[in-house]
Amino acid sequence: MSSLKEVGERQLIRNIKKVLRPAPEVRGTDDDAAVLDADGDVVVCSDIVTFDRHMPEGMTYEQFGWTAAAVNFSDLAAMGARPTGLIVSLAMPDNMEEADLYDIVSGIDQCCEFCETYVIGGDTKPGPGVISCTAVGKMEDRKPMMRNGANPGDVVAVTGSLGGPAAGFAALKSKIDAEDAIFSLMTPVPMTHEGVILSQCGKVTSCIDLSDGLSTAANTVCENSRCGMEIVWEFLPIFPDVDDVCIATRGSEEDMVLNWGGEYELLFTFAKEDIQALQATGVPFSIIGHITNDDGAYLLKNEDKRRLDYGRY
Amino acid sequence: MSSLKEVGERQLIRNIKKVLRPAPEVRGTDDDAAVLDADGDVVVCSDIVTFDRHMPEGMTYEQFGWTAAAVNFSDLAAMGARPTGLIVSLAMPDNMEEADLYDIVSGIDQCCEFCETYVIGGDTKPGPGVISCTAVGKMEDRKPMMRNGANPGDVVAVTGSLGGPAAGFAALKSKIDAEDAIFSLMTPVPMTHEGVILSQCGKVTSCIDLSDGLSTAANTVCENSRCGMEIVWEFLPIFPDVDDVCIATRGSEEDMVLNWGGEYELLFTFAKEDIQALQATGVPFSIIGHITNDDGAYLLKNEDKRRLDYGRY
Repeated sequence: MSSLKEVGERQLIRNIKKVLRPAPEVRGTDDDAAVLDADGDVVVCSDIVTFDRHMPEGMTYEQFGWTAAAVNFSDLAAMGARPTGLIVSLAMPDNMEEADLYDIVSGIDQCCEFCETYVIGGDTKPGPGVISCTAVGKMEDRKPMMRNGANPGDVVAVTGSLGGPAAGFAALKSKIDAEDAIFSLMTPVPMTHEGVILSQCGKVTSCIDLSDGLSTAANTVCENSRCGMEIVWEFLPIFPDVDDVCIATRGSEEDMVLNWGGEYELLFTFAKEDIQALQATGVPFSIIGHITNDDGAYLLKNEDKRRLDYGRY
Repeated sequence: MSSLKEVGERQLIRNIKKVLRPAPEVRGTDDDAAVLDADGDVVVCSDIVTFDRHMPEGMTYEQFGWTAAAVNFSDLAAMGARPTGLIVSLAMPDNMEEADLYDIVSGIDQCCEFCETYVIGGDTKPGPGVISCTAVGKMEDRKPMMRNGANPGDVVAVTGSLGGPAAGFAALKSKIDAEDAIFSLMTPVPMTHEGVILSQCGKVTSCIDLSDGLSTAANTVCENSRCGMEIVWEFLPIFPDVDDVCIATRGSEEDMVLNWGGEYELLFTFAKEDIQALQATGVPFSIIGHITNDDGAYLLKNEDKRRLDYGRY
């Protein structure tokens, strides 16, 4: 018998699904958010953040609260759901200063305001420094974007740029000045507006957020859509600070851009012939590759082609 | 500035509400569940359980999982919502055996089956032994039962009997044989069916579950309904084992019945003239007192009347 660490999170989730009775009338159980068809396209998702794992040195309590909300709104965004509320369960140490708790709550509320919604309930009790949020959203007759709809020949695109939070983390650790990268680490921005618009256009075949990094996102789409993906290194939109931080810290640019989590851009796919419909949405995006008949995600770089493994998240 | 422990959970929640922007189109933000009117009477609630606080010695992982689900379905039951799904976030120690995790998940699934619903999503990551569930339900045109509708003159009633989990805990600690009480502690039963029927009858003016104990529940209804309550000790339906366990452990019967949490019966109120409508529902209940013009909850016992404080939860 193995420990949880030995099994790994992805395999654990696969095993857990075998223990559970499968849920009828629910789409998206392979996604981070689930659509309850019986409830008129209500979308719900839930995610836990912990002091230990999600509060890098230098992050304020307010930023930690913002992050706890943002990870959930990002899961709604990937599906194209518009947020209708956030439920917050706090399990915080008894000896924490009360002002710090209110800072966390204020950060949560600011992220809700950014996403045009509200905290609608929750609870607080003593615990080890854990925030569990549940975001509720609605599809409003848009078709939810899932992870399992990519087709061979589809174009792969991402919103925004990649590697900022990773560069921010490295910069902090090495005390390098990289304000924008550090800000992107401390204040992840969920693509709520972009997600709604992308689902509205009706041409997106699959979508996932990059909260677990590009490699993991790419492999997850491949696994769920039973397809392959080729990503072209030279096409990747890299966050401006990444280059400088890599030089200063002797870090790996590839590792920062491919294997890091903590960024909340969307990766999505669509048929080639729909590119004009996508451009007409006004959501800025970069094409980074295409879907193949293969199995798993590959990186093309300098005439080389190599398999991308799941990243560290 | 005070620590969270010094401020206390109830006061913290009051203070947190001052930090947040108030949510429009949501009812029940003073309840453990919230009704999203904009989403067609979808009800959501969320609750965290931890190894430290909610897993007494002798509880199996399966029972712990059941409990994590039950506390959430109980919050839906108090409102009269029918469950439509459960989202589960697990934060478990890296060194846990994988079989133990599957036992937790199996317990969660069994409680879902009991409540005629399913796990519809979730997540697992390393953490300190925390389960955060979010239950989703629907009102199906029934009026949600809230904590703020009790009126002076109303009758106060409870489903089931009181003190079982407290007696079970005391029995375990003193190694006394009290199988039923111990079972009631280890396998809390959410009043899902009863909640739906009580809300269906349309005559309940307020409702709350007893997960934080009778004293806390009574005071919470008083605070939210701006009224008083008189509870008659002799009317209280006491769990059969309580008497024996108290004698054997020299425990306080009053403390077990009034101040303990962990039981999931419903306390509810209704106008005197509606008693036949309530009896016609077929839900068994005991009348334990009435609502007054006063302020706060009182216990009448042996001609004595004394103020009931909030219990330990």
